[in-house]
Formats: sequence, C-alpha cells, structure tokens
Amino acid sequence: MSRNTAPATPRQLHLNVNILHSGFVPSAWRLADADPRAFVDVNHYVRVARIAEAGKLDAVFLADNAAIVDQIDFRPITALEPTVLLASIAAATTHIGVIGTASTSYNEPYNIARRFATLDHVSNGRAGWNVVTTADLASARNFGRDAVPDHAQRYERAAEFTELVKALWDSWEDDAFVGDKAGGRFVDVSKVHPVAHRGRHFDVQGPLNLPRSPQGHPVLVQAGGSPDGRDLAARHAEAVFSASQSFEESAAYRRDLNTRAAAYGRPGVKVLAGLTTIIGATEAEALRRRDELVDQIPWRYSLNRLAGTLGIDAERLKLDQPLPDDLALPGGANGNHTFFHATLAQGRRHGYTVRELIRSLAGGTGHRVIVGTPEQIADDIAHWFNGGAADGFNLMPDALPDGLQDFVDGVVPILQKRGLFRTGYEGATLREHLGLARPDNARLWRKSA
Amino acid sequence: MSRNTAPATPRQLHLNVNILHSGFVPSAWRLADADPRAFVDVNHYVRVARIAEAGKLDAVFLADNAAIVDQIDFRPITALEPTVLLASIAAATTHIGVIGTASTSYNEPYNIARRFATLDHVSNGRAGWNVVTTADLASARNFGRDAVPDHAQRYERAAEFTELVKALWDSWEDDAFVGDKAGGRFVDVSKVHPVAHRGRHFDVQGPLNLPRSPQGHPVLVQAGGSPDGRDLAARHAEAVFSASQSFEESAAYRRDLNTRAAAYGRPGVKVLAGLTTIIGATEAEALRRRDELVDQIPWRYSLNRLAGTLGIDAERLKLDQPLPDDLALPGGANGNHTFFHATLAQGRRHGYTVRELIRSLAGGTGHRVIVGTPEQIADDIAHWFNGGAADGFNLMPDALPDGLQDFVDGVVPILQKRGLFRTGYEGATLREHLGLARPDNARLWRKSA
Repeated sequence: MSRNTAPATPRQLHLNVNILHSGFVPSAWRLADADPRAFVDVNHYVRVARIAEAGKLDAVFLADNAAIVDQIDFRPITALEPTVLLASIAAATTHIGVIGTASTSYNEPYNIARRFATLDHVSNGRAGWNVVTTADLASARNFGRDAVPDHAQRYERAAEFTELVKALWDSWEDDAFVGDKAGGRFVDVSKVHPVAHRGRHFDVQGPLNLPRSPQGHPVLVQAGGSPDGRDLAARHAEAVFSASQSFEESAAYRRDLNTRAAAYGRPGVKVLAGLTTIIGATEAEALRRRDELVDQIPWRYSLNRLAGTLGIDAERLKLDQPLPDDLALPGGANGNHTFFHATLAQGRRHGYTVRELIRSLAGGTGHRVIVGTPEQIADDIAHWFNGGAADGFNLMPDALPDGLQDFVDGVVPILQKRGLFRTGYEGATLREHLGLARPDNARLWRKSA
Repeated sequence: MSRNTAPATPRQLHLNVNILHSGFVPSAWRLADADPRAFVDVNHYVRVARIAEAGKLDAVFLADNAAIVDQIDFRPITALEPTVLLASIAAATTHIGVIGTASTSYNEPYNIARRFATLDHVSNGRAGWNVVTTADLASARNFGRDAVPDHAQRYERAAEFTELVKALWDSWEDDAFVGDKAGGRFVDVSKVHPVAHRGRHFDVQGPLNLPRSPQGHPVLVQAGGSPDGRDLAARHAEAVFSASQSFEESAAYRRDLNTRAAAYGRPGVKVLAGLTTIIGATEAEALRRRDELVDQIPWRYSLNRLAGTLGIDAERLKLDQPLPDDLALPGGANGNHTFFHATLAQGRRHGYTVRELIRSLAGGTGHRVIVGTPEQIADDIAHWFNGGAADGFNLMPDALPDGLQDFVDGVVPILQKRGLFRTGYEGATLREHLGLARPDNARLWRKSA
C-alpha cells in the first residue's frame, strides 16, 4: 500500500460514475432497451459497474436518500441501500472503487464507521464514504423529527460525526493484529485504543470492533456547496462532488476549496464536477437523443421538480417565460445551496424560458449537461481539467447502461490517446486510483507530536 | 412465490450454519490449516457459505456485536458488519439463505427496514434478520449510554421497533410498481402508504423508499431465552436460535414458545437449537480433536469467559472444584438468560468440576457440544428432531471451514439417506427453504378486516 502522493507525476484525470439507477434523465427508464425494474435489480448495477471497470474509471458512486424525495409516479428513485448494494458490486468487480452515501443526521457514528470499514475490508481497499447531512423534510420525518434540523446544527453534527468516525477507524493501530498461532496471541491489545469521545452530539467509548481497514480510512467524499459544506469538505474531504454550470464558477469553487483546505494544513481536495453526457455519433444525433428523452418527461414532473429546487409553487413557472425575478434560497440558509444556485445560474446566464431551461437541464437537477459527439465531450473534459476547473468528473450518463457504454467506447479512448486518462489500473485501492496517501494512524501522529 | 405452508408434507429438518469467524472453539484459529486473518477475510466467509450451499443447508447466519465483547488477545471476534458481509456472500451463492444480526437498541427502524429489504432484493429473496436487543455494557458505551438499558425497556423498544419495521416493509403494496413505459407511469402512488407511526420510542412517517422485497418480509429470527425474549419471539419470530443442553429442556422450550405463539394466533415458530459439532472418523478421534482444540485455549481465557457468563469474579472459579453454589443471573433480570442458564445446567447436571465443564463446553458459551462420528451426530439430530426437541439446528462447527466440510461430507448424507433432509433445493427463497408462507401485505389485511 503506497504512501506516496506522487507529486512528481503529471496530474491525473479522475472519472467516477454515479449509478443513478436507470440514468440521469428522469425518462431513461422509458427507453426501448431499458428495464423499468432496473432500479431494484442488483444485476443492473453490476452490469454498469463492469462497464465502468472496463473503462478504467476510478469508482462507481451511489447517491442516497432515506425517504422518497422525488415523484415516483413518473420516475425511479434511489431505493437500495448503498453499502449493501456496493458490497454486491465489489464482489463482482476487482479494481473499481465503490463510494456510497450515508447521512450524518440519521445514523450513529459507530455504525457508519463499522459499515464503511467493513466495505473497505470486503472490497480489499476500494471503499469511499460520501458524507451528507440530508436537507429534506421527508427524511427528517422518517427519523422522529417534525422539521429538518437547522443547517448550522446539521453541519456541526456532521463535523463531530466525521472526526469521530476517523478516530474509530484509527482505534486499532495498523500492527495491532498479531495472529501468532504458536504463541497463542491473537491481538496486541496494547495497540487497540478506546476513542473515549465526549462531545456535543456524541459520547462514544470505542474501540471499533474490527482492525484498521486496508485503506486506513475509506476515502472521504463530500458535496457541500454552502459555506458550512465547503468548510466541512476542506477539513475532511479528499474529493468533492461539485455542481457548476460554468468553467469559471467551477474554477472559482476549486480555488476556494483548496484555499480553505490549505488553511487546515491539508493537501488539495479533488474536485469531481457533476457531468451528464448525452452522446451521439454527430451533434445532431446527440441532440435528437436529448430531445427524445426530454420529450418523454411529463412537463408536470419537470415543473414540480424545478419548482422544488427553486422553492416556489409550480404555478409560478410559465413554460414560455423566464424564471421569476424574486427567487431566494428555499428555507433560507437551510436550503440546498448547490442545486438552487446552479439551476438559477443556468436559467439567468442564457436568458432561458422555463421550457428551454428544463430542456437544457435534461429535466434534471442543476447538474451540467453536455450533448455532443465523443470528441466534443473529450474536448470539454480536457478544457476543464487542463484549465483547473476540475480534477475529474462525476459522470451521470443520460441512461444506463448504454449512456456509460457509449462514454467508455467513445470518450475514454480519446482521453487515453491524449495522455489524460489511464489505460490500465496501476494501483489496487481507491486511494491509489485517486492518488491519495494512505493516512497514518492518528494515534501515531499524536505520539510523535 | 408460493403461499403454501405445506401442511400436508412431512416435517422438514432445517440446518443453518453460524459462520462464527474461525469456528466455535476459541482456539480454532490456531489449527495448522487455519488462517488467523480469516475473521476479516471475505473469501473465508464465501468459502464456508459455498460449502454450506453444497450441503443444501437452509442458511448461513452471522452473529454480531457492536463492541469488543470477548478477549481479543486470545481469539477472534465478530468484526465485519453482517449486512455488508452477507451481500458479499449472496453475490457468490445462489440458493442459500443469508441471516444477519442487528440490534434494536442501537439502530433506527427505518435504516434497518431498508438494509434488510435491500439485502432481500440483492439476494433475490434469501434474507433474514436476527433481532437482538444487545445486553452488554461495551456496546451501550459505543452509543452514548453509561449503562445497559433496562431489560424490560430494551424489549419494549424491540417490540415497537419490530412492528414498525414490518409496517415499513408493507408500505408498498405488492403491485405498487407499474413500470408502464408507454403510459409513462412508474409507480401507482395510491398503493404506496405512509406508516404514520407515533409510538413510545419512535415517530416514523414512511413510506419506505423501496418496493416490497421478494419475500415480502425478510425472515424474522430471534434468540431470546427470557420471558420477555420468548414473548417477542412468539409475537414476531418465524424461527428462533435456542441454546439448550438437554433434550427435555429444549422440548419444553419449544412447547412453551409454540403455546405463546398460538396465543397470538400465530403458527409455530421453528426452533433451531444451537449445536457445536466436533467430528471424527471414530469417537476416539473426535475426542482427540476436541482435546487438541481445548488444550490450545489458555485457561485464563476460559475462566474469564465462564466467569463473565456466570457474573462472578474469575478468582471464585477453581479448576478442580464444582461451580460455586450461590450463582444468580448476572445483572438480575437484565442479564443474558440463555447462556447463564444453559451453562449452569450443564455444570450442575453432570456434577462437573470447572475444568470438566470448560472442556465439555469446548471453552465456549453455553451452547451444546457433540463430539463423535458422523453416525453419532446424525443419530442425535434425528432424536431431537423426531422427538420434538427441535425443528432444526443452528450449527456452530468447532473450526471453519473444515468442521463444516466434515459435517457436509459426513453427517448430511446420513440425514438425507434417512429422509430427514433435502437432497436439493426445492424453493428459491429462504422462506421456501424454511417452509414459511410469504406474508400478505398488512394493509391488505386491514382493508379486508
């Protein structure tokens, strides 16, 4: 397990795929080849992961909600629990990383530390945890609350939660396990430590009941766009999933995040920009595919979804007029900053009508959508990567598995030819794919301090 | 998915294997062929599960603790989190059931409902949940508590928790998913219901964010020996893991449990008696294996372990004297009834010295140990099964994988020859293996009531 961050080798592009069930576009399940039941079919996820692995991608990623937070009458939702599903995927793959989402608001630190460490053990060092604080009311109501906890309080809990999880991951020193058959000594208990955490949100004694995992810490990923979210990412995240509609915004976000991380004495955080791809052999073919998909999304769905992101009644949106002028972050500081701002920016920048905005978003969230040929998409990726707007991309293909297959067959070879992307896995762990050091055990640091 | 409980077919023996890391005997990891690191090696668990599947066993089972509750200087512990590990096992097998333990005291009902439903989806209907309330202080201290919650309170919470999990599993009617591509209708939302639970311990709105799982409900398993535990099992469990040292005790336990279940209008609960097997080609060979294993357990370990089960200081145990006379359930009604009573009964019945008792328990808990040839073990199993002392067995082979391999190669064919055990899987789901009906959706019951 390499400890090198490989500072001398050229910057490496990172590609991750979000297996968002049938695909990013809400109507993906209606395509001729699609199986509507894919969202609960483990074989579908395994198939997508194998395509991603054939394309030498860094990782697959599973978003998550602990509630129904979209309109299931019209489209699939995140349903299967990520850690269990990722264990199934890990069993069917050998190299690709497996990153899952879990909420700090509705879990216990000991359980999360253990589940992700277990995923790291069973995948031989390929696990990552996407730390989310969960901003929706439906989730809150599934965990004994009448309202979403305050934004600042959610992030305060998340910070303590993440610190504590890392301490639990470090509660066994790397060489605590002995396994000396002749001497009858299984573990050197002097190297297994309680964490004895007494905090504002949690009291946890520890130690964890399993040895330090192959990566030391599963990779920590975050996706916060708010100041609190950026601060949490700067303190703990090794990669972030971002959502920016423009090169300039993304570059500014990346600079800000790295400045914040440096203030904590940390190396740079990998910015993986959200990117939906709609691919065709020609641009016209790609546009036709986009329109075919968007035309199968009921307008009622898209209007409700857009209204939800913007925090207004759907009646206020007129298909052939621009967005209303008086929009403010829904729930004030408690809202989901990332998608509100990205969606608003997209609407304002181009002066789009609501209809045009929805089409440009492929009916989805505020993630950026590129419609084009493999060459056009590779050019765009190279531009963002070389210009410092991103360290890589969190791909959200329009439809799965075929949208990813097209990416792997069409875009990846171009990126490889340009020397931007690996042609084979060089490392074994997700950390190695991402060029991240294996963290030393915090206890060792404390002793040497 | 059959709805028949098959009342006309002859009673079927059920066999389950507890993959207790390196095996039941605390020194199993020291055997010549053993890999001490097996307890955190997914390939070890997969290997054992494949042997179990080759033997047509009903299920593999993973016990669990959310803390270090044994002496890790001397032996392995339950380490990897069960649902994640079982997903790995399910991916590598096709028929065998996968049953995992999760605590109602240190989890949220929504999360547990979702994880086990997910496991049921990814295993195509092979999941089971072993409901435990967790009686140890070390676990309590990992979840913000200074003391173990009171026994009655733990069971009250467990009852509400289990009810609520079942309601969440029923929150989607079986035909709620539509997937009509042409009509654009994904889910019939009129068939997806909130649970709107407002209870003493939990407020959960629901619905669950995934469709009803292949088995309707993952199989519910329980292991309580106390009156509260038996009551919980009678109300909810479809199978129990029991621990009795004698035929008579086990038969009485099974009668009591079925009487209690009948009072709730429920069919019988399958009693799967804990059974450790130490197998040899001759009885003398089996005894040698037993002694070889026991002699490699440090006495200090065994004395501490026995003292812990009995709730006394280890200094009070003298190797060549019988157990002290004045033993009482540790922690009063809060203690672990099952193993205290089983261990005490074993010591008293035979008038064993402490040394003899530890040897007869193979250094372990209060589970029954048989040492003998495949014929002797098959005879014992047949006697218990035919005489109504058990519906099957939760096997805890002395060492894994070889102790299970010996059972599958030696004991299973004898049981099959006698018509007691299946020669092939007839069903696809764990419910079908166990002869359990697929539960109707509770909402349908309510409508028709």
